Amino acid sequence: MTTIGIDLGGTKTLAVLVDQGEVVAKAKRPTPRAGGPDAVLNTVVRVAEMVDPGGDAHAIGIGAPGPVVPGSGILPAAPNLPDWDHDVAVGEFVSERLGARPVVVDNDVNVATLAEHRLGAGRGFDNMLGVFAGTGVGAGLILDGALRQGPRGLAGEIGHTFVAFRDLADASVGRGETEDYAGRNSLERRVRASNDPDAAAILDLVKDGRLKSKAWSDARAAANPLALCLLDDAAAALATAIASAVVLLDIELVVLGGGFAERLGEEFRARVEGEVMTRAFADTTAPVRAARLGDVGGALGAALLVEPASR
Amino acid sequence: MTTIGIDLGGTKTLAVLVDQGEVVAKAKRPTPRAGGPDAVLNTVVRVAEMVDPGGDAHAIGIGAPGPVVPGSGILPAAPNLPDWDHDVAVGEFVSERLGARPVVVDNDVNVATLAEHRLGAGRGFDNMLGVFAGTGVGAGLILDGALRQGPRGLAGEIGHTFVAFRDLADASVGRGETEDYAGRNSLERRVRASNDPDAAAILDLVKDGRLKSKAWSDARAAANPLALCLLDDAAAALATAIASAVVLLDIELVVLGGGFAERLGEEFRARVEGEVMTRAFADTTAPVRAARLGDVGGALGAALLVEPASR
Repeated sequence: MTTIGIDLGGTKTLAVLVDQGEVVAKAKRPTPRAGGPDAVLNTVVRVAEMVDPGGDAHAIGIGAPGPVVPGSGILPAAPNLPDWDHDVAVGEFVSERLGARPVVVDNDVNVATLAEHRLGAGRGFDNMLGVFAGTGVGAGLILDGALRQGPRGLAGEIGHTFVAFRDLADASVGRGETEDYAGRNSLERRVRASNDPDAAAILDLVKDGRLKSKAWSDARAAANPLALCLLDDAAAALATAIASAVVLLDIELVVLGGGFAERLGEEFRARVEGEVMTRAFADTTAPVRAARLGDVGGALGAALLVEPASR
Repeated sequence: MTTIGIDLGGTKTLAVLVDQGEVVAKAKRPTPRAGGPDAVLNTVVRVAEMVDPGGDAHAIGIGAPGPVVPGSGILPAAPNLPDWDHDVAVGEFVSERLGARPVVVDNDVNVATLAEHRLGAGRGFDNMLGVFAGTGVGAGLILDGALRQGPRGLAGEIGHTFVAFRDLADASVGRGETEDYAGRNSLERRVRASNDPDAAAILDLVKDGRLKSKAWSDARAAANPLALCLLDDAAAALATAIASAVVLLDIELVVLGGGFAERLGEEFRARVEGEVMTRAFADTTAPVRAARLGDVGGALGAALLVEPASR
């Protein structure tokens, strides 16, 4: 019995067909940048049909780029999707278009965490934090073996937890949220606002108008002093937020992924892990492992939403 | 059918006899300051016999001042109890002495949170954070209606989460843990180490060798500038840690208690709530209510450990 998992991202929409935890087919399309929710959902339906042309899969799971009202299939807001500023019944739309099969929708970071928990770096750990650092910073929580969604579907927003409470050396950083230090968008904003003479060399690495993850690993390789300082802060802030979550929840394992963290690689992971370890309380230490499923994790996790027995 | 709840504290041991959520008898004894675990446990047995001389209660719940290995009844360490530096089977000892009745043991802050959730300020909220600020700062978590213990029994240690990650203006504060700013012991240590001319006026309020909670409310009433500054920091740090927990877990309600917070009263609660609100992300706001059960909350919560149907 097969299931379909779909990772609906701001850039691309990726579908996988999963049979007993194995990906047996894959398809992707660019996510439309205009045309509103209808255009986006047509793409979702399209990739589902591409991986399962016969319509054999018994259910569909979708990871969406925003908080999902638990149990509803409704995505109320998605800043990275076109004109998505109101409640859209994603589950209902897709189910109707795909022959009334069951559709379950959850947040993209939650499903990526679920995938790492069941099939990736977090296997065997029932109390796990999945942290994904990319343009922003998000997390998913596995507590006593189950994904924590929260009553409003908002659990896991580690990027918006706080790692400073006053006396910010530089108020332009923001309110002291983790993402202010460890999110790629925030880092780019700070470089652009900086008067530091080393900022220009970092901005020379801009591609397609943005400082991508590769730019940061290149600036680090070139030992750009501003880049090294900002990346130091990113690791320290991320580790502080992770340590707080580990201590508050008695977490046993942290899985670190996301485009930014993965590009910065083993050096970054080890740095974060070291700082988490020094901040442990009593026996609440948790190793930090690199995410193992990469790009396909989100779609795989979405499939797991409708395949609970695959554990 | 009655149950016994016992709050085993560093200073006193309080027992209540509970019948359908109502306290029908109460007894307390000073907790021995010497004689090791045996002396302490004899006191626990004694107060149980005082509230239930006929031995009618069907089970006993105990709140203990330290992390408890989940499901074991074992308290491995309790810094505020005499010579308690090794595994002690609290549940087994008390059960044997009280006619082999079932005994459940959990952390004191966890049981106080459970009491506020079922019978106090947190009624009706299935996703609740109970924060208790006294000598130290601890918390209990109710997630989806259940108490979070964590695999090692260490969940809820909000006092050891972090509200600063670098550039501490004053390294003597510690590592930037919440308790460094908001725990009464840490505040006293900072006043004693201070060169500030206003420190002496605060230290004039020492009683029995310690700066008690009343000293802080008196220093605030006298508008002592150092006290006001430290209490401002305490509220801000506590609010920052609470806001992080609210955002990470999608918490709906915060209950604030503990001797220090309760003595500082409504002014302190309102200040903390205001700062939590300004730090909300999306719809993750949570009001901060004052704990309602006061001194008896711990013992009542301990009774609830063995009275799950009383909800």
